[in-house]
Amino acid sequence: MNVLLTLAYDGTNYHGWQRQENAISIQERLEDAISKVCKTEISVIGASRTDTGVHALGQRAMFAKNSNIPIEKFTYAINTQLGSDISVVKSEAVADDFHPRFSAKNKTYRYKIYNAPFRNPILRNYSWHVYHDLALEKMKEAAKYIIGEHDFSCFCASGGQAKTTVRTVYNLSLSKENNEICIDINGNGFLYNMVRIIAGTLVYAGMSKIEPKSIKDIILSKDRTRAGITAPPQGLTLMEINY
Amino acid sequence: MNVLLTLAYDGTNYHGWQRQENAISIQERLEDAISKVCKTEISVIGASRTDTGVHALGQRAMFAKNSNIPIEKFTYAINTQLGSDISVVKSEAVADDFHPRFSAKNKTYRYKIYNAPFRNPILRNYSWHVYHDLALEKMKEAAKYIIGEHDFSCFCASGGQAKTTVRTVYNLSLSKENNEICIDINGNGFLYNMVRIIAGTLVYAGMSKIEPKSIKDIILSKDRTRAGITAPPQGLTLMEINY
Repeated sequence: MNVLLTLAYDGTNYHGWQRQENAISIQERLEDAISKVCKTEISVIGASRTDTGVHALGQRAMFAKNSNIPIEKFTYAINTQLGSDISVVKSEAVADDFHPRFSAKNKTYRYKIYNAPFRNPILRNYSWHVYHDLALEKMKEAAKYIIGEHDFSCFCASGGQAKTTVRTVYNLSLSKENNEICIDINGNGFLYNMVRIIAGTLVYAGMSKIEPKSIKDIILSKDRTRAGITAPPQGLTLMEINY
Repeated sequence: MNVLLTLAYDGTNYHGWQRQENAISIQERLEDAISKVCKTEISVIGASRTDTGVHALGQRAMFAKNSNIPIEKFTYAINTQLGSDISVVKSEAVADDFHPRFSAKNKTYRYKIYNAPFRNPILRNYSWHVYHDLALEKMKEAAKYIIGEHDFSCFCASGGQAKTTVRTVYNLSLSKENNEICIDINGNGFLYNMVRIIAGTLVYAGMSKIEPKSIKDIILSKDRTRAGITAPPQGLTLMEINY
């Protein structure tokens, strides 16, 4: 039997999700914690490889149950072995053919921008500070052209391992409260850095560096250099994965 | 001529506002930054002595202008000398008889609670995690009895230096979005730990440990032991000071 965990973490002090040599990762911390709880070495399969500085409220990770602990108790047991910047929020049993990455139907990310002349210390690790005044209506108009099934090569950083660059964005909405702009995006999958490049492109639209209408052409061109910059990692949070 | 600064800071890594021996404070960091900009030793007068771990988006601090830098340029100049967890957001000229503390008409604080079974790593330094499910309506009812002019001895920690314990709370409102409860409080002044004890008392009301109606008696009793616990500092943010 396999156990699926839902995880929240502050990515500020980690070199991303994936276990690696010479740098501390969320995966390593989590595997160490589960191994202590189960009293044997445990490996997990993560749903999403979040980058350095990226946060999560709805990451998922699976491991083979190798202990008599009741499934729902893993949440409490693993949390006692984790620091305050990683938290298990749910543990549940999943079928043997379940895979955290391949079984996912869609994922939701949130990208947060702090749009004001001077930096906000409280949000410094959880938003991109853009001091140029952004035109929200232009960003919303640009977002409309991104929704749908497209070849998203223009929003893909090199280094990705995807077999195809076609993805479907089901929803892309923007909201603003005080000086905080939230970009919420839901899709069936995302290419390497795709959400951050979309955020950077929407910011360029808000700064009138890119015409909202031209997003259509940019997508058709498949040319990464025509899109906006890659927004910095700390604004990004993996919100939810649906199966 | 005096310069009044509006400041935002993340209090997580500081021993509060006030300069002290053997511990790093916001005031010390700010005075060092201004002294570098003005090329002479500068002392500031702060509006509010925030405690260790308490944050601010609208703290104020004043110093005597001792430089040819135009008033509005101090914002930029001082920020270049500060780390990312303290930020000057405004600099303005004030009259000689202005005092950041004594001239204040009212102040607004926000206290944030994360009300969910498991901790939220992203909010760990900016909220009080209460896992017991809180009844918001009871908290709102309790809040009504706190609004107005009262002797607030019951919500005052020992160690304060106030001459009178009578204060007026003009507004005290609660709102909830997802699992975050915000307590917004505005008053003409606050006793030592008053906002945090009010937050702790409202949480006790939400847990049914205190009857909302009994708040009236608790205030009249002037008995600190009958109120709730002092809520932890990291949930508190000084939002605004009005003159």
